[in-house]
This record gives sequence, structure tokens and C-alpha cells, in this order.
Amino acid sequence: MRSDIEIAQAAEMKPISEIAEKAGLLEEELEHYGKYKAKVNLDALDRLDQDSKLVLVTAMTPTPAGEGKTTTTVGLGQALNRLGKNAAIALREPSLGPTMGVKGGAAGGGYSQVVPMEDINLHFTGDIHAIGVAHNLLSAAIDNHIKQGNELGIDPTRVSFSRVVDMNDRALRDIIVGLGGKSNGYPRQDNFMITVASEVMAILCLANNISELKEKIGRIVVAYNYDDEPIIAKQLGVHGAMAALLKEAIKPNLVQTLENTPAFIHGGPFANIAHGCNSVMATKMAMSISDITVTEAGFGADLGAEKFFNIKSRFANLNPDATVLVATVRALKMHGGKAKDDLTDEDLDALSDGIENLEKHIENIKKFGVPLVVAINRFPDDTEAELELVRERCEKLDVNVALSEVFAKGGEGGEELGKKVIDILDNEESKFEFLYDEKASIPEKIRTIAEEVYGADGVEFSDEAKKQIELYKCYGYDKLPICMAKTQSSISDNPALKGRPEGFKVNVREINVSAGAGFLVALTGPVLTMPGLPKRPSAEDIDIDENGKISGLF
Amino acid sequence: MRSDIEIAQAAEMKPISEIAEKAGLLEEELEHYGKYKAKVNLDALDRLDQDSKLVLVTAMTPTPAGEGKTTTTVGLGQALNRLGKNAAIALREPSLGPTMGVKGGAAGGGYSQVVPMEDINLHFTGDIHAIGVAHNLLSAAIDNHIKQGNELGIDPTRVSFSRVVDMNDRALRDIIVGLGGKSNGYPRQDNFMITVASEVMAILCLANNISELKEKIGRIVVAYNYDDEPIIAKQLGVHGAMAALLKEAIKPNLVQTLENTPAFIHGGPFANIAHGCNSVMATKMAMSISDITVTEAGFGADLGAEKFFNIKSRFANLNPDATVLVATVRALKMHGGKAKDDLTDEDLDALSDGIENLEKHIENIKKFGVPLVVAINRFPDDTEAELELVRERCEKLDVNVALSEVFAKGGEGGEELGKKVIDILDNEESKFEFLYDEKASIPEKIRTIAEEVYGADGVEFSDEAKKQIELYKCYGYDKLPICMAKTQSSISDNPALKGRPEGFKVNVREINVSAGAGFLVALTGPVLTMPGLPKRPSAEDIDIDENGKISGLF
Repeated sequence: MRSDIEIAQAAEMKPISEIAEKAGLLEEELEHYGKYKAKVNLDALDRLDQDSKLVLVTAMTPTPAGEGKTTTTVGLGQALNRLGKNAAIALREPSLGPTMGVKGGAAGGGYSQVVPMEDINLHFTGDIHAIGVAHNLLSAAIDNHIKQGNELGIDPTRVSFSRVVDMNDRALRDIIVGLGGKSNGYPRQDNFMITVASEVMAILCLANNISELKEKIGRIVVAYNYDDEPIIAKQLGVHGAMAALLKEAIKPNLVQTLENTPAFIHGGPFANIAHGCNSVMATKMAMSISDITVTEAGFGADLGAEKFFNIKSRFANLNPDATVLVATVRALKMHGGKAKDDLTDEDLDALSDGIENLEKHIENIKKFGVPLVVAINRFPDDTEAELELVRERCEKLDVNVALSEVFAKGGEGGEELGKKVIDILDNEESKFEFLYDEKASIPEKIRTIAEEVYGADGVEFSDEAKKQIELYKCYGYDKLPICMAKTQSSISDNPALKGRPEGFKVNVREINVSAGAGFLVALTGPVLTMPGLPKRPSAEDIDIDENGKISGLF
Repeated sequence: MRSDIEIAQAAEMKPISEIAEKAGLLEEELEHYGKYKAKVNLDALDRLDQDSKLVLVTAMTPTPAGEGKTTTTVGLGQALNRLGKNAAIALREPSLGPTMGVKGGAAGGGYSQVVPMEDINLHFTGDIHAIGVAHNLLSAAIDNHIKQGNELGIDPTRVSFSRVVDMNDRALRDIIVGLGGKSNGYPRQDNFMITVASEVMAILCLANNISELKEKIGRIVVAYNYDDEPIIAKQLGVHGAMAALLKEAIKPNLVQTLENTPAFIHGGPFANIAHGCNSVMATKMAMSISDITVTEAGFGADLGAEKFFNIKSRFANLNPDATVLVATVRALKMHGGKAKDDLTDEDLDALSDGIENLEKHIENIKKFGVPLVVAINRFPDDTEAELELVRERCEKLDVNVALSEVFAKGGEGGEELGKKVIDILDNEESKFEFLYDEKASIPEKIRTIAEEVYGADGVEFSDEAKKQIELYKCYGYDKLPICMAKTQSSISDNPALKGRPEGFKVNVREINVSAGAGFLVALTGPVLTMPGLPKRPSAEDIDIDENGKISGLF
């Protein structure tokens, strides 16, 4: 089989104006970025109804074996169109850090990719850079304010808003800025995060328009003053300029899949310290031009789907109609104790043990009242007996299951899945509901997620977390939904616990407020907001020839 | 009179496809960025001849009173088209740092602006961010290499390639990175520059195509090893990925002026540690579509024009046909000793003294063999007597002079200047030549510039500079042209010396090699590569309303 980039470069793309026209978008609503990418003005959301069905693609607990959530999302969109439906997809946009580091690109794979994949993986339409520089304007304004007299009384040891860069650069994880004497400010400890971890990214993904974006940016807590009171971005007066810097970034980007399914790719917040979904505006734009919208959320369903339901759907008034839960035989075997290097061997015992991970995610999604189908993303070494075992176990739980071969076969390989999804949309009613009331207390909300979703026996709060809970109550930040920052490698907060962990308590070390984005971040462990490069970074493989052709991008 | 942004927003822009078509560009050579901006593929340079006349706009020594080089360039382009010529312009693209800081935008002024000015001033087509992230990939690769075993033996105390961000952020001038223990690398002193100071920016502006760009990036000296040998980017293996990140940024951006003159805006390197001119590709693109191309260079003629002639023209085989030297009565009076707050009063004595600054620049341009015209950029308070005095003194030197009112009147206000330029192009032959042979020794080349252009009585080299001269000779970097890093506020290297300084020596403190860009940077004083924000940054005035309309941008 050809490599992803070879397949992508051989794609027969249609001009984006043709894709847009077919989707019912007006030429004056488009801002072209070359021939195959366009931003769509938000006016289109007012003109069109968002009466599409909404399908969320999520997954079992990730393993190094890979799940293929994006590939399944793309493939399902293609399959639905092959089956005569009018489908569109909505995805997150890739960050350059992983592209240059270890993960490679993030535009699907095989015959289920979004294109032009090189452009999508290499800055795309510049949204992430715009977010980065808007963020860094605020960072610079904070230090400038302190240097120019510090009227707000900002405590330099309590600046919580760091700086960002869209690169994997571990040397910037822990730094001292402001050295060199009076003209450079004052020295303080600081750090850079990768841009996608910026609260500005989370805000862009949860805003409905430019005014709301500006308003939310103004609410970001950037520091505390000497009286322990929060200082917000608005007090520094640069939130208008930040919104101005995002005037284009706020518009969703329209591209297409290998089979010309319209795809909105927009926004890409972290899935731990943020909610890990593409922008509300992109989802709504996809819903404006289709009868079925397929979208995804980061990491496993315990994180991605939970946040999609409790955060994104709450802010955007979304009512998800169906969920696709992606699983692979390989990953299930790893959850059953199989080592990464032995995954090609048939092992029904390991598989059988590992399926309990999938079962827990199934139970969880049912708690939200959303009908679901399990998609087994087929890999070449999967045996018939293994596939049959997964089917059986799902059927025992009365859950739809479909084999998906979208990587190798594109939309055709997703027809079984597509038919199951259509069947659900036609015949099952979503009784979607949030898992908690946002007006509940902070500990109550966290406990609900930990017990209901993770299966924990309760939550332990550190002394610091307890202090923060009091502080946020005092400043009115306690009525916000919770964004859990937890390992993606386990349903519990302990990455070593595979399968379906039981008999554990969740430890909340710290709670941060993302008052701009509108949620509280409960940290259950260390979260790395700045990845590093591996010994041999992907960047060493990437090249461009004299004709501008890119190679080595995966 | 209306503000710049009001005038710009009231502009009757033509679709960029119309501007391009009229200019003879093919639709398939364009990459549209919205309706009024397009990147032009470099293929167009092969298809079309660059047989245009080339006019450089430069200026007297800058003062806080302002000169209006960009405004004059735009206005002259408009005037030439009014006069029936087929003219195009080529300009640098603005950096966000100054836009958010103190200077405001950089898209001309009054009725001589390039539009859409908000877009041009706010990220434009993302080139500077692309340059920034390509730069930062290399920065991250250096620290990663050291952490991952340091096979190249890089001395962490001798990493010369810092990091960049497109923001005025003084807290990043002097920092320590790599704190926090083994997993974060090793602590070392570092700094961030503003992106336009990046050598990658200089390279982009001097490359002719993507292969040359990659080749030049590979040659950047990033550090020295423990044996005192230079380590170049190619040894880290990420130059291909850096070039890939610049695949779109390398294409010149086509926009238009308020009077629909085609304008290429592309690249914007520092005018001290780099050569301060828009990209070679943009200049050549403008030359491909016009009979007369008007372009500019940063700071006064002692820096901008000298580098345009000795560096850019050398690398790009350009043969400048005429020079426009911009002067203002206000700035001339400041050079004659008048304080900034008293400039509205007529003062023929101060003016007469100050004109010697202009005269020195006139002499200098003549040394390069390029015919010139002085453009007096008229301000409302200039008196007839003052204007007459400047005219007289120019005529005494047998130099063309024209009054320019392009700020207040657009192209119409540039007709006198336009006619003079046409007259030169029709009747005077440029005998352009470089001021020095690049094969001369480093001290010889620096001495030529200092004595011939600055009027110095010689050059003093610091001990460090002397050591570096030996080192560069040893590594074969001594045959490169010289890029002087000098104060822009004086023709000498002492910012306090106004007018036409005499009896001074130039002090070269340090010489850096920009082996990728292809020049040696001679530092005559401290160069600030990271500006700071003022007490009240321009960002506080910038805003966007619910309809996406920008305000407060100057």
C-alpha cells in the first residue's frame, strides 16, 4: 500500500469553490486560501439552519497500538455520502509540534484523509499562529504592565498566563525571563506552552462569534494581585487587539476528503487541560451544509466524549444524535495485557480481558443517553476469530457493532458502519443529557465524573485544591463546568491501570480556572503542556524538492 | 482629513484577480487569500521577463519627525500610473511587534496606502509566522541535539542561534532556558528576537527559489563546537523541514494601492543586522509585470540604499536605474538642531544647517552611479520659503528635486515627482556599480563603507572583532559582503551626531556571520533585536466590532 502522503498527493481534489457551491455556500461567504482551502464567513451560520444530525466519533482508551479516530471520522463521512446521504465532517486542525516531533501529521490516514494534507499539516490557514501571537500579546502586556509601574498591583510571582509557541521545545518548559537589568523588566520564573494548550485556543473553539470571542478573552485570569484577587485580561486593555488578531482565525476552514466529502477543520485545543474538540463554529458550519455531521473529540471516551457532552454541547446547545466508539483488536489486546510487540499474534484470552475497557466506555456513553455503535477499525493482522469475539461481546451488551476498513478502502470500507449509523439516526432517539448540573459545587461535579465515568470509589482533594475551591467560590468561578486533566492511558487517573480499573480513588492535585473558556480544570496528575522532540524528530524526514513537492510527512 | 484606516476602509478595491489579470499574471499562477490578496507562484518569474526599470526610494537620516518613505513609494507608483506608465511597487511586510507597540502599521499613509491595510498589518498571509516557526524548529533542534547526546559536540555556551516571536516583548531579551532538571535539557542563557530579525527572514528575502532557500538555510551558523568550529543548520538535518514550512511564505504577496496600482509586499528583514529590503522575488515579480518598479529600503540611505546596492542588487543581479531620496523640511530642521516640538515654526537657519545631511546622502548615491531625484515630502506647516531653500540647495548640486504631496493627494500629489523620475529613466543612464569588491578583506570592505558612505576618518576594530576576522578567514566566510549594523539616527555610528558628521572613527565591536543569508554583520553599537512595549501600547487602541470592523490601527 502507498504511504499516506503518496495517496494524498494522488488525490483528485475538486476546486474548493465547487465543494462549497454543492454544499450550498455562497461565493461571497468564502475567503479562498489557494484553490483547495477556504475560510467561510460566519454569516453563513445566520443564513442557514443547523438542522443536521450530529454524530460523535470517540474511542476506547488509547494505546501505542493506535485507534484511528480521525481516520474513522473521515471514512464514515465518505461512506455516508456513498450511501446517498449528505454528510460533512468537522475535525481539529493539526499542531506543528507533533508534526515535527514524533506523531506526524493529523489528517487521517490511508484512503480516509483530508486534503491537501501537506497544507493542513503545515500551518494550514495560519489559525494556530494567529492564536499564538494573540496569546503572546497578552503575555507581553502583563510584563509590560508590571514594568511600567504596575498600577494593578500584579504579584510577579503569581502570573498564571505563560507564553506559547507552536513547536515541541522542552528547553522552554521552565525558564527565567526578564534578566539583564532594569530596561528588560524584572526576573521571574515563566514557561512556554505549545500553542494548542493556550486558553485562547479553547476560547476560539467555544465562541460563537467575534464579540463573544472578545468578551471571553477579556475574562481570562492572567495573574493575582498582592491582595490575592484575580487580574483579568480586560484590565490590561489588549483584548480588543487580541480579537482583531483573530479576525480571520475565527472563520472555519473548508477542505475536502479524498472522496470530496466537505470537511471543516478548525481549532485544536488540548484534550487534557482543555476540552479537545474542534470549534463550535466548525461543527455548526458542518451542520449547516449537511444532513449528517460527523465530528470527533480527543483521547478516549472518558475524556473526549465526556467533555464533548458536558462542555462543548453545553456551551453550543448541541444535541448529539449518535456516537461511534472506535476500537481496535490490537488495542484491546494491549488492555488485556499483551505487549506492544506481540500484537500480530492471535490471542483470544488477552482480547477477552481487554474488551472490558470497551465495555466501560459503552456503559459511559449510555449514561449520556446517546445511542452508539462500536466501530472495529480493522488492521491487517486481525483474525476472524478475534473480530467475532468483539462482535459477540458487543451484542451481548445489546450494542451495535460494525467492522470498519476505511483506512484501506476509503468510504467503501465504511459502508457497514455507515449503514449502522443511518439505522440509529432513523430509528433510535437520542435522550442526550448532561451528567451534572453546572450549578452543583465543584467537588460534587468532579465526584460525578470520577465515579460515573471513571468508575472511581471517590475523589481525594489535595490541600491546594481545597484552597482553590474556596477561592473560586469567593470569586464566582464555582458554577463553571469541569474540564478534567487526566492521563489518557487509563480510564483511571493512573496510567498503569489498563482495561477497566476498579477500587481506586481519583486524586485532584490542583484546580485551575479557565474563566475565559468558561471551565475549571481539575488536574489529577502532571500535565505536560510543552512536548519535547525525540532523538530523531520527524522533521529530519520532511523535505521539499525544487518543484515544491513535500516528502516525508506522515 | 480622515485617518489612515478610515481612508483605507473607504477604498474602492478591485478584486485581486482583476489586478493580476491586468498585470499579465495567469489565474493558475495565483493562490488567492480572500478577495483582495493573492500569492503568486514563482513560475511566473520564469514565464515573464524582468525588463522593468527599477527605482529605489530611500531617505535622509530618519528623525522622530518622520520621512514617509513607504508613503512616497506608494504615491510614486500611483503617480506613474496616472502619468500613463505601467508601474508596480514592491514593499516590505509589516511586523506585528511595532503594530502592537509604538509605531503602528506600515502600509503607507493618507491617500498613498496599500490595502487591505488591516489585513496587511495583522499577520497578512502569515509569512512572518511561517518564518518564525521555521526558525524555532531549528532552535528546538539545537537544544534537542545537545540533550540527546550531543554527537556534534556543540558547546552550549556558544549557541548563537536564538529563538524568535513576532511581538515586542522585552522580558524575553535575556532569559535562561532548560531549567527544571534532566528531562528539560540543560540550563543556558538564551534570548528571543523579534521574528523580523531572524536570519531565516534575511534568507527568504535573498533567495530566488525554494531550492536556494533550503540551501541557504542549511548554511546558517547556529553554534560552535568545543573545537571552535562552526556548526551549521544542515548538520542538524531540519533544513528540509524548515524549507517545507516556508513553501507558501516564499511566494510574493500581491495587493493593490488605494488607486489600484499593483503592489508586492513580501519579506521584511531588519535594516541593521540584516539588509532591510523586501524580497528579491517580490522585486523581480514587480519587474515582471511593469515597465517601472518602485521599491524601498529601510532607514536612511547610508544604511538602506547602501545595502540595497551592495547586498541585494549584488545577490539578485539588479541594476537600479534611479533613486528617489525622500526628505522633509521638518526632519532637515531637526538635523539643523531644532527640537521636535518646535518644528512647525519656520526656521531657515536650522533648515540650512540641516540640509548638509541631505547633501551627504546625495553625494553617496552618486558614488554608486545611480541618477537621483530628491523628493520633498510636504507637510502642512512647511513654508514656501523653506521649500524654496531645499530646492535651491539641490539645484546647486545639480540634483533633481520635486515636491511630493502624495500623503494628502495620492497619486495626483506625486505627479511632479513622477515626471522627474520618468525624465531620468528616459534621459539619464545609470552607471550603477558596487562600492567594494566582495573578495576584498573584511577590514577593507568595512573601511570602504565607513569612509566613503559615512565620511569617517577610519575604522577601529575591537579585539573581539579582530579575532572574529581571523576566525572567519579560517572558515572561508571572509569573502561575503558586509551588512553594517549601525544607528539609523546618524550617518556616523554615534546617534547623537546629526547633520553631516565629520572627524569621527567608526568603532566595530563585533562581527557576526550570517552565512545563510550570505553576509557578515559588522556591529558598531548595541543593536536591540527585541523591542519593548511602551507605557501605552498601540494594542490598547486596536479593536474589532461585532461586524468584524477593525478600528484604532494606524
